[in-house]
Amino acid sequence: MFTDATSEEINTAMDNAWVAFHEYRKLPLKSRADFMRAIGFELETASKELVETAKKETNLSAERLDGELKRTILQLNQYGAASEKGEWLEARIDTASKDNKSIHDIRKMLVPLGPVVVFGASNFPFAYSTAGGDTACAFAAGCPVIVKAHPAHAETSEKVAEAILKAAYKCNLPDGIFSHLHGAGIEVGKALVMHPKTRAVGFTGSLAGGKQLFDWGNQREIPIPVFAEMGSINPVFLLAEKLKLSADETAKTYAQSITQGIGQFCTNPGLIIGIESDDLQKFMQILGNEIQKSPPGKMLHPGIAKAFDEKRNKALHEKNVHIVSVSEFEKKENEGIPTIATATGEVFLKNPVLHQEVFGPYSLVIRCKDMKEMVEVAKQLEGQLTSTVMATDNDFISNQELIEEIKNICGRLILNGVPTGVQVCLSMQHGGPFPATTDSRFTSVGADGIKRFARPIAFQNWENKFLPDELKNENPLHIWRTVNDEITDKPIN
Amino acid sequence: MFTDATSEEINTAMDNAWVAFHEYRKLPLKSRADFMRAIGFELETASKELVETAKKETNLSAERLDGELKRTILQLNQYGAASEKGEWLEARIDTASKDNKSIHDIRKMLVPLGPVVVFGASNFPFAYSTAGGDTACAFAAGCPVIVKAHPAHAETSEKVAEAILKAAYKCNLPDGIFSHLHGAGIEVGKALVMHPKTRAVGFTGSLAGGKQLFDWGNQREIPIPVFAEMGSINPVFLLAEKLKLSADETAKTYAQSITQGIGQFCTNPGLIIGIESDDLQKFMQILGNEIQKSPPGKMLHPGIAKAFDEKRNKALHEKNVHIVSVSEFEKKENEGIPTIATATGEVFLKNPVLHQEVFGPYSLVIRCKDMKEMVEVAKQLEGQLTSTVMATDNDFISNQELIEEIKNICGRLILNGVPTGVQVCLSMQHGGPFPATTDSRFTSVGADGIKRFARPIAFQNWENKFLPDELKNENPLHIWRTVNDEITDKPIN
Repeated sequence: MFTDATSEEINTAMDNAWVAFHEYRKLPLKSRADFMRAIGFELETASKELVETAKKETNLSAERLDGELKRTILQLNQYGAASEKGEWLEARIDTASKDNKSIHDIRKMLVPLGPVVVFGASNFPFAYSTAGGDTACAFAAGCPVIVKAHPAHAETSEKVAEAILKAAYKCNLPDGIFSHLHGAGIEVGKALVMHPKTRAVGFTGSLAGGKQLFDWGNQREIPIPVFAEMGSINPVFLLAEKLKLSADETAKTYAQSITQGIGQFCTNPGLIIGIESDDLQKFMQILGNEIQKSPPGKMLHPGIAKAFDEKRNKALHEKNVHIVSVSEFEKKENEGIPTIATATGEVFLKNPVLHQEVFGPYSLVIRCKDMKEMVEVAKQLEGQLTSTVMATDNDFISNQELIEEIKNICGRLILNGVPTGVQVCLSMQHGGPFPATTDSRFTSVGADGIKRFARPIAFQNWENKFLPDELKNENPLHIWRTVNDEITDKPIN
Repeated sequence: MFTDATSEEINTAMDNAWVAFHEYRKLPLKSRADFMRAIGFELETASKELVETAKKETNLSAERLDGELKRTILQLNQYGAASEKGEWLEARIDTASKDNKSIHDIRKMLVPLGPVVVFGASNFPFAYSTAGGDTACAFAAGCPVIVKAHPAHAETSEKVAEAILKAAYKCNLPDGIFSHLHGAGIEVGKALVMHPKTRAVGFTGSLAGGKQLFDWGNQREIPIPVFAEMGSINPVFLLAEKLKLSADETAKTYAQSITQGIGQFCTNPGLIIGIESDDLQKFMQILGNEIQKSPPGKMLHPGIAKAFDEKRNKALHEKNVHIVSVSEFEKKENEGIPTIATATGEVFLKNPVLHQEVFGPYSLVIRCKDMKEMVEVAKQLEGQLTSTVMATDNDFISNQELIEEIKNICGRLILNGVPTGVQVCLSMQHGGPFPATTDSRFTSVGADGIKRFARPIAFQNWENKFLPDELKNENPLHIWRTVNDEITDKPIN
């Protein structure tokens, strides 16, 4: 339906972005926020059509898509407000010394990197795609955006792009502020990452895809940062006393978390680790019962359903992996069938295949023989977006070694909860050590994600009148700044 | 004199660092600051011997080395104080909603990445080496450090390492908090970057060296951030009115900046760009006279002196490059001879060889035919640590296109000053687009450099008593935090 962008179209998009970059970055922070609010308004206006189109392309329910679109608008508004508030700029001012002529006036703030290429996620047609978190962060930072549409929801992407362009037009922004290109294979994506005018890349998707973009970004003559959010199996550690007190409740909560959205969240709990005991058996039994009663559901697209079947089957056929429970309902075409499997800690430690993400409603319960083995499992696990500990106070206090090991592997550590459900707020860390992301120092959710696309510049010995407003003595934007090592929102006298 | 570290020694250092990491990161911020102050104290105590040793190894003057050592101690104290103050932690708290059960309590702060490998610089045996900025930032972040000693000042490095270990012992820190290894070739460095327990790398030196470490870091099974500060020619743009008013003063100031420390600073102005005019000719003549009167000086070590000769000769033999002036004094062995050359903008734009750094007391004056060509030069320049504009108010206001292009290429932009002399303060940006550094989003000078070695972790739904002190309701450390989107140093009620 859509044809791949030609080299000429790619060059035009990048050239326009480069021109737009120089105009957009000079606008006041408020204009960035206004633009982002305007996009939100256009998305809201087109919401019915957008949800219908996405429903057709992704098999996701109208309710889920409606919620996701609302979240997308919230992100745009929230990051726009953060951009305007200016705290993310990390404004630092050291004034010149009156006594020592060699101590100069230096003032620093973050400035946008330049054109950002965004690759949307198959599992979130709105919130992590065309007008999603990466795009919102880039606009907030002052960067133009070039989106490579995800082929699994290309039409939705096209319609979202129209909304963005409409907002740009209404806000009098230059054409190049946003471009939307299609590409079914890897060629268009590669050309975009390698383009000399590209300054950064945002990606959400598979490990293979993200790692490839990361490598291309580093292999350029001038390397650029590629922030890829990739796979995660989101381990859940069940501690003994907690399990004794609430095996039933925990099992039910997790059955829901595992099957929510047919398991197609990057924070889906794919691994549950306990210590062999009657309580763990009870937990597995109740979890199994719940999963048995859970109906299969249509996955995002046939490719994802096929991959789920393959990875699930592969995992289930590994030596000493046993099925605990499978949904009792018959699976139709392109549906994902809820499944729980189990293996011992010893088997898990020896088999790296079991560490791999099975994207869909699948979870593996690991039965460790003791806490020592559970610590070993935590040590061996790859980087994760989230880890969860189910623990009473006693459990928590007496298992500090485990907690410390878990801290090493994740970006968000949940106590007595579920990893699914990513709150959009400043304190959110949606990132983690490789392979969860390509750079654990950044997040793709929350306004701190803006910093992926900005860099500091220091102005030395500039006259006040020539400085950007953000750094002027009188602090006309009333932002919080660090002046001579003290945080303040006051002007400088 | 020193032998290369064996694989066994490397493994031991990394294993010890990994153990120390888990102890050190749990200590209060104050302990990190105490440790850093203790290192400063030991360096101060050993200063006479340190300066003597460094003088013997580097040909730098006692006065310069004394100043550099003082700066090194200042850095340790300053970054230690910043670590203790806790603003760099980017503590963010969003409290749970009382009305909406799905809005959880989430609290985020930066935590250390893990063991950091540091490669010292040949030109700064103290401030950018063993106990230099990278080491100070890593300790402040909560990371153990493994230094690969620079072979050009291995004995100095050894003595500085002794001071660090003495401080660690006095502070009761675990052995692995600091290790010091020698390696004359690339093997030890490569093994350290590739070691699975290494979590980040800091480097100051050549483009070839830094790029190699960056590539290794990215090619690992689990990639790690490599922050390399590399070459920079630090262009200086002379605008017309400024030149008319103060050609003489500017030329004298720059003669000093070019020859300071025999031109061996990473911020040495290696390129001066003006528009052809009588004023520019006058500037070149006065600069030439000053350079003629400047004596040659012994460079850091024979390798650097040889490289300077070679690169200088290569540049001078490029087509249509002419010598303006050379020091009138006879050059002795291993000395660098102050030299000014010139070429037209047209020649410069066509010849990438002239864009390369000639590390030493050398500067090339580019004579552009008009402002359009000067803008073209700015557009073509590679990433830089600094750029400088010499301009009157009129010059500044009427050449905004040039200013915007210059912003694209540098980390620090100086107005009417010199790039040499890097102030150690929070507002300093010592970094810049590639090839100035491998990641323009970070700095290697100033307490913001700590963030190179830290990543955020979010704690969701944790009980107050289990949270780190930095995130507790009562704010026992009195740090500035962002609580429900408001910056505050108050406790949470």
